Amino acid sequence: MTLSIDLNCDMGESFGAWNMGHDDEVLPYVTSANIACGFHGGDPGVMRKTVKAAMRQGVALGVHPGLPDLVGFGRRAMAITPRDAYDMVVVQVGALAGVAASQGGRLNHVKAHGALYNMAVNNKELAHALAQAVYDVDRSLVFYALASSLMVGVAKEVGLKVAEEVFADRSYEEDGTLTPRDRPHAMIKDVQVSIQQVLRMIREGKVRSAQGSDIHVHADTLCIHGDQPDAVAFAKAIREALLAENIAVQTVSHGA
Amino acid sequence: MTLSIDLNCDMGESFGAWNMGHDDEVLPYVTSANIACGFHGGDPGVMRKTVKAAMRQGVALGVHPGLPDLVGFGRRAMAITPRDAYDMVVVQVGALAGVAASQGGRLNHVKAHGALYNMAVNNKELAHALAQAVYDVDRSLVFYALASSLMVGVAKEVGLKVAEEVFADRSYEEDGTLTPRDRPHAMIKDVQVSIQQVLRMIREGKVRSAQGSDIHVHADTLCIHGDQPDAVAFAKAIREALLAENIAVQTVSHGA
Amino acid sequence: MTLSIDLNCDMGESFGAWNMGHDDEVLPYVTSANIACGFHGGDPGVMRKTVKAAMRQGVALGVHPGLPDLVGFGRRAMAITPRDAYDMVVVQVGALAGVAASQGGRLNHVKAHGALYNMAVNNKELAHALAQAVYDVDRSLVFYALASSLMVGVAKEVGLKVAEEVFADRSYEEDGTLTPRDRPHAMIKDVQVSIQQVLRMIREGKVRSAQGSDIHVHADTLCIHGDQPDAVAFAKAIREALLAENIAVQTVSHGA
Amino acid sequence: MTLSIDLNCDMGESFGAWNMGHDDEVLPYVTSANIACGFHGGDPGVMRKTVKAAMRQGVALGVHPGLPDLVGFGRRAMAITPRDAYDMVVVQVGALAGVAASQGGRLNHVKAHGALYNMAVNNKELAHALAQAVYDVDRSLVFYALASSLMVGVAKEVGLKVAEEVFADRSYEEDGTLTPRDRPHAMIKDVQVSIQQVLRMIREGKVRSAQGSDIHVHADTLCIHGDQPDAVAFAKAIREALLAENIAVQTVSHGA
Repeated sequence: MTLSIDLNCDMGESFGAWNMGHDDEVLPYVTSANIACGFHGGDPGVMRKTVKAAMRQGVALGVHPGLPDLVGFGRRAMAITPRDAYDMVVVQVGALAGVAASQGGRLNHVKAHGALYNMAVNNKELAHALAQAVYDVDRSLVFYALASSLMVGVAKEVGLKVAEEVFADRSYEEDGTLTPRDRPHAMIKDVQVSIQQVLRMIREGKVRSAQGSDIHVHADTLCIHGDQPDAVAFAKAIREALLAENIAVQTVSHGA
Repeated sequence: MTLSIDLNCDMGESFGAWNMGHDDEVLPYVTSANIACGFHGGDPGVMRKTVKAAMRQGVALGVHPGLPDLVGFGRRAMAITPRDAYDMVVVQVGALAGVAASQGGRLNHVKAHGALYNMAVNNKELAHALAQAVYDVDRSLVFYALASSLMVGVAKEVGLKVAEEVFADRSYEEDGTLTPRDRPHAMIKDVQVSIQQVLRMIREGKVRSAQGSDIHVHADTLCIHGDQPDAVAFAKAIREALLAENIAVQTVSHGA
Repeated sequence: MTLSIDLNCDMGESFGAWNMGHDDEVLPYVTSANIACGFHGGDPGVMRKTVKAAMRQGVALGVHPGLPDLVGFGRRAMAITPRDAYDMVVVQVGALAGVAASQGGRLNHVKAHGALYNMAVNNKELAHALAQAVYDVDRSLVFYALASSLMVGVAKEVGLKVAEEVFADRSYEEDGTLTPRDRPHAMIKDVQVSIQQVLRMIREGKVRSAQGSDIHVHADTLCIHGDQPDAVAFAKAIREALLAENIAVQTVSHGA
Repeated sequence: MTLSIDLNCDMGESFGAWNMGHDDEVLPYVTSANIACGFHGGDPGVMRKTVKAAMRQGVALGVHPGLPDLVGFGRRAMAITPRDAYDMVVVQVGALAGVAASQGGRLNHVKAHGALYNMAVNNKELAHALAQAVYDVDRSLVFYALASSLMVGVAKEVGLKVAEEVFADRSYEEDGTLTPRDRPHAMIKDVQVSIQQVLRMIREGKVRSAQGSDIHVHADTLCIHGDQPDAVAFAKAIREALLAENIAVQTVSHGA
């Protein structure tokens, strides 16, 4: 059996006259695009252009629903109810599905953005609301969830196919969560260290935690950050390293 | 052959903590709901509640896309490009399609809101952009257009089924457009006069213009205003008058 | 010495085409208006109309800064930094000061809205950011703070005059905070019970907590809710009761 | 008498996580900053940082009020009433005045942004609303208006000091308006040609129109575009050329 992994990247986060990210340069190296839907970034025109660009490169179309907070870019936690979360995901999935349809495409997956993702990692009701919203709009969509987190089980129970997401440039805690960004060593800056972490997660299903112990992870998809200065170089390096190790780089799709 | 007409009404225009309209009271009397999608009114929760309420009453679900202008309620013309118009309609149709799907429903039609509708009545490129956007997302949707306006032909050419819309409480000009609201006699306040205008439009395909001449109109759907104090009474009166005259009150659907 | 109290009410929370509250009916009974500034409600036109109406009735002009969350009406807590809070208060105070100046008026006070107020009641850094923002824009403004809460001391230390705020229709906990709304008996529905609670707070500086013990409060200003069905009747009743007991109803101003 | 001119530049147009312009690099070369106030760009934090940076460089603080259209960056004309315009300018002037006060600064001028500026150039009622709004909030502010346009006279009549604005990189029409951007030769790309146009406007009060005739202009302030790739180089070049010709580069202030 061939090992494989999906490379996903947040995209379409420009807004109006403002540009963000390096979508066109990153697209050739990834297999899944998580496309913003206007709540934290993205506007109707940006959504169309991003869908088109991803389709041209054969990159899978994913929804990247966020909190309604443009100024905070969806990164500030908000005390929303599960119902609020359900409604905002339904609308964002629908909006991008409309854009995809208008360009002759189809959605593949949904990955929550920023604080919405982080809140759901630790909140079963919220995780359930996200998964149920996706299921109710289109049950064939793949649900991206932090590997080993409660989101995984919740979304499977709802009836969705889940892709477990791992990170190349983030340190892990013993409980499987990511080391918060404000801690020292939270970010892995050395590309080679990142690549080794990824290879081990894929081949052995393990990652060394910040505390030194090994923890289990199932790596279906790897998050590539697209808005950092060296994003393109990193995407290229990780893709090449994976291919060199005979690991297939491919989308997680419903049928697979 | 039985004469018939659709009664459509704008709905779901509440927003956050603010209520607007009398949706629940008007729903029993109409056959089509034009539901706001967050650009001029409506928010994700309001969209869900409105879709649910319409489905419960067997009222057809329609999209009511507007300009991105909450403070102006989508009533202030904006110098948008046809591409802007296309993109904002695609996103709004998609968003409501998502909500409809999440509640087990399906969209039936699209009617542009406020200034977007009025601008398209006189602007071929804009009318085309609206129709193309609807077609590209879901060609089975019925396109509501001002009766006898250029929107009708444009949308048919795009390939959409069109419902021609007439007004009970508005006076018409010789060229088939509505008398602008700021002119005297633009609004017909007497319910009986309104009803007579509607009956003649349906039975004879004619309406007396403000200038005194008869003009041709094809009446597929009648607009009921839901946000006025006497909206409910008017909706009830017009429905009863139509039924009393053996005119069927029913949705315009794609297959029909 | 005459006892006195200020009656404050949130106002100007309409937005665009949406109305909220009964400002014109409540204004004759209150002495201070807390006016929304566009973040949770209010728009530039509503701000002008509200300032004008308050000035016409001799009601003091206050700023009611909220979180940037129209859909949630500023009632959903957000993980903002103290710096975020500082910035959003500065801008909202400035905006209303501009409106007041344009109408020949002057601001008197600032009272935070909804979740911003509630968050600051329990968070010293946030309370400090709010007070510092007010001080930095105009140190002559009176700062409204929950009576006996940490906000009071923080704002005094910053150098502001503070008005301690009490509630007529809310039950108190032993620690001086308000009983959360989702608990039974959180709301006092009987107007006479409300009035008795207020009179005792003013005359004795005490309120009976939900747990049965007396707690100290200093009552400078009483919050009147303007968006409830019986808001006008309640405002009238409380004002008349106060006057009947020879308690002066007057604004808390900087110089006093 | 020494000839002099003000160099003004739009600034603070970043928003949330999105950057725009090269404010820090351009600031050393200009004398007046037109700072966005959240309607078309700018957010409360960006406003504070921009005010601070301008003050540090001794650059005059100006308000840059725009239409409420983030996605369109305030560049799409909107059918607003003069009252709408008045209200949105009052609020934006007030907001920035608050930020300036919080940082120990004071406003110097107001220059409308994008479509709001362009609409007012040809619309007396709108121009009057803008000027009256500025006057009503703070009559000591200088009003920037397109040189020779109706805005100039309207604002003077209202009672404001006016700075007439000219452009280095735009071609003029015979009637004194700027050649619309979509026409050939609308933009002057050669820096030396730009500089010659500016020097002649300052020294002779004349500019050669696209039609070949000379037209009169009074040049109080020159617009420097800050968001173009070569903005910094152009600002530096024009400043040096002016100084080399013994033309003082200084702010237009109320008292001067």
